[in-house]
Amino acid sequence: MVAMTTPSAVDVSIVDLHGCLRDPYMDSMRFLSEVATRYPSAVSFASGRPSEALFDDDLVERNLRRFREYLSGSAGLDAAAIRRTLLQYGPTKGIINRLVAKNLLVDEGIEASPESIVMTAGCQEAMFLTLRALCMDKSDLLLAVLPTYVGITGAARLIDVPVLPVRSGSRAVDLDDLVAQIRHARASGLRPRACYVIPDFANPSGMRIDVEDRRRLLQIAEQEDFLLLEDNPYGLFHGDAERWPTLKALDQSRRVVYLGSYAKTVIPGARVGFVVADQTVSTVDGGGITLLADQISKIKSMVTVNTSSIDQAVVGGALLEFNGSLATAVARQRAIYQENMSLVQRGLAARFGPGAGAPAGVSWNSPLGSFFTVVTVPFAADDAALAVSAEQFGVLWTPMRHFYTGHGGDHELRLSCSELTAEQIEDGLDRFAAFVARFAAGTSER
Amino acid sequence: MVAMTTPSAVDVSIVDLHGCLRDPYMDSMRFLSEVATRYPSAVSFASGRPSEALFDDDLVERNLRRFREYLSGSAGLDAAAIRRTLLQYGPTKGIINRLVAKNLLVDEGIEASPESIVMTAGCQEAMFLTLRALCMDKSDLLLAVLPTYVGITGAARLIDVPVLPVRSGSRAVDLDDLVAQIRHARASGLRPRACYVIPDFANPSGMRIDVEDRRRLLQIAEQEDFLLLEDNPYGLFHGDAERWPTLKALDQSRRVVYLGSYAKTVIPGARVGFVVADQTVSTVDGGGITLLADQISKIKSMVTVNTSSIDQAVVGGALLEFNGSLATAVARQRAIYQENMSLVQRGLAARFGPGAGAPAGVSWNSPLGSFFTVVTVPFAADDAALAVSAEQFGVLWTPMRHFYTGHGGDHELRLSCSELTAEQIEDGLDRFAAFVARFAAGTSER
Repeated sequence: MVAMTTPSAVDVSIVDLHGCLRDPYMDSMRFLSEVATRYPSAVSFASGRPSEALFDDDLVERNLRRFREYLSGSAGLDAAAIRRTLLQYGPTKGIINRLVAKNLLVDEGIEASPESIVMTAGCQEAMFLTLRALCMDKSDLLLAVLPTYVGITGAARLIDVPVLPVRSGSRAVDLDDLVAQIRHARASGLRPRACYVIPDFANPSGMRIDVEDRRRLLQIAEQEDFLLLEDNPYGLFHGDAERWPTLKALDQSRRVVYLGSYAKTVIPGARVGFVVADQTVSTVDGGGITLLADQISKIKSMVTVNTSSIDQAVVGGALLEFNGSLATAVARQRAIYQENMSLVQRGLAARFGPGAGAPAGVSWNSPLGSFFTVVTVPFAADDAALAVSAEQFGVLWTPMRHFYTGHGGDHELRLSCSELTAEQIEDGLDRFAAFVARFAAGTSER
Repeated sequence: MVAMTTPSAVDVSIVDLHGCLRDPYMDSMRFLSEVATRYPSAVSFASGRPSEALFDDDLVERNLRRFREYLSGSAGLDAAAIRRTLLQYGPTKGIINRLVAKNLLVDEGIEASPESIVMTAGCQEAMFLTLRALCMDKSDLLLAVLPTYVGITGAARLIDVPVLPVRSGSRAVDLDDLVAQIRHARASGLRPRACYVIPDFANPSGMRIDVEDRRRLLQIAEQEDFLLLEDNPYGLFHGDAERWPTLKALDQSRRVVYLGSYAKTVIPGARVGFVVADQTVSTVDGGGITLLADQISKIKSMVTVNTSSIDQAVVGGALLEFNGSLATAVARQRAIYQENMSLVQRGLAARFGPGAGAPAGVSWNSPLGSFFTVVTVPFAADDAALAVSAEQFGVLWTPMRHFYTGHGGDHELRLSCSELTAEQIEDGLDRFAAFVARFAAGTSER
């Protein structure tokens, strides 16, 4: 009989777990999604969640019903097949790929075959699966324009893929720096596999890559032999600005892997995203050709088997509502976000502009779309400052440090206005101005 | 202006992608879930899907309604909070953890705090996240009793974690071999981190670890300092056999990470599983203590952000129906699976037993629960043989090769009876007997 050891206070040491768990930024996603819950009475500029005011209570049931009608109507399924489609395990690649392909054509001018699409458990899974497929080991790199979405750096960190920062500069991406980084990496024996970009109203910067630079990006990807991972969660929230073609719509030589999200346009709770990966891939035996989507789906089968058919049905129902056009469906959201952005911009000007008597050194950018504004402040806008802001001033924002892989963003913070009413924005900016005044004073005294 | 290269026939070579994609077994999961779709007129003993006959058409809507009633009733949420809970992004760890904790207590006698549970996008994600948390690099090993579930070897392959096979022997796990493998690995400078086991009616073998060996397993895990990953998708389908306590119910020193699935008991389409990880973990700064569940949830945030609240609501509704007891809820399923198992066993005896005039060398095991029977045949039961069986004889089964990491199972196949009616089982076994007769003859002629 073996003696049972008394359980020690700590069963597992953190140093024995995967290295990503010692990286503070692995907690960023949870932090961003849960910080508002910790301070329920604070006004939250922290989260980039879609506005809850736009959710109908019966959104799920209504879209399920519409998708059922589609299955029994134009899809021609009998009752048993409908039951199987909605309740049973499903195909790894998904069950609404045709509807998504139509949506891409209608809203983005992207011609994607249903076979080139893999439906995923949110866009986050699409990022993770794509990175896993593309990167063999630590010598394979991802490039990312900084500041960048914390979800992509986190996904890379999970599989020990280094992220090489590219400067954004004044044009949303510094193309000379991109080429220089790639060549430098190659000279060091490393393989740059892909560059992650959000060309339309990037999170967190709100910046947009212009059409000329989009074309140049595609040329550079071709010339330097890497892929572009285009993430586009905000393209439909373009305010009054003209819409520009996505990289994927301009892509003539399959250089772009397109990452899609329905969290902001349909419903976040359902967790439905997708990846378009139409690149051809040789098979193991060398005799045939598959799509990168097929390779990605093999990886998906070992991460989540298949995307929930119920969630896909809810999104499928929403896609059916306006005949494939979410641009039409989100018109009201777009107007609200635009109005909120202009309230934030005017509110910042009133509180920190010339003659407002505010501390010097506060500035901000003015994006034309999405719902993020980056504010520069004359003190370290870190998690400690945020805690004070939350507890003493009742206002939440996001430290920009979360969006940098190395140094950067120390004096910057992100204000998101997606979840707020006009009254909350005014009240929140008052609180924010009080916080900045106190902190700027405190900092100058040190 | 940079010249555009003409797209080549192949954009990406398979050898430039992650190595797992050259492993034929990475396609096993998709193969198993989609093979029946490829041969719709065949009788399928291939899939371990739950019986569709037991799904009510309104299962989703009914459980959503019940969960809504729970939120507004005993959970005391107002309309806005209910909308937020069901439609918005949610907490990384999940929203039905209390209901799952109650279910574990009622059905398994497992005392788990809601905080030690992470809800996942199916049990597959629970496996993947747990492995990623526990394994640092290629020197960290997973042990698995062979034959084993292809989902665990695939998840390990994704992150380059080697799987060390442990013999099952005649008692479902060969404990001497387990200890020998661990010591041998340690002597080679490797770290065995955990051993994956399905103690109750394992997939694919149908075998069960007896209570004495369960206790010894726990002692060995303590003594040799590794964790047990207990997967329990079939425990409630125990036929007439007495239920035995799970490893987690016997676990006195937090040596067991429990992997749970609601795919077989509630609904596969919703993709809801969970992991109980109550092990204490030191924090980065060394000052505090977290749970392994907290570490796993950080990884989850970078893979799928959070589990669909709609899917969780559907499962939550089902958990509420019988006051937390799925053992009660699945009584009808259990009886059907048991009847099907006995039809398969009697059918095999009638066609291949003494005096049946069948080819020699056909034998099979007789599990007391779940729905898998392993048949040994006198020829290679590989994917090529399966293709002939499907196309010429109209019957599907699973080559056991899929469940071995190295060699093994060449002359074995798995018959699953979960999806079939009595008539289909009789018809399918007739087809199977014809296939075996032809193949056994063909093999002996060579």
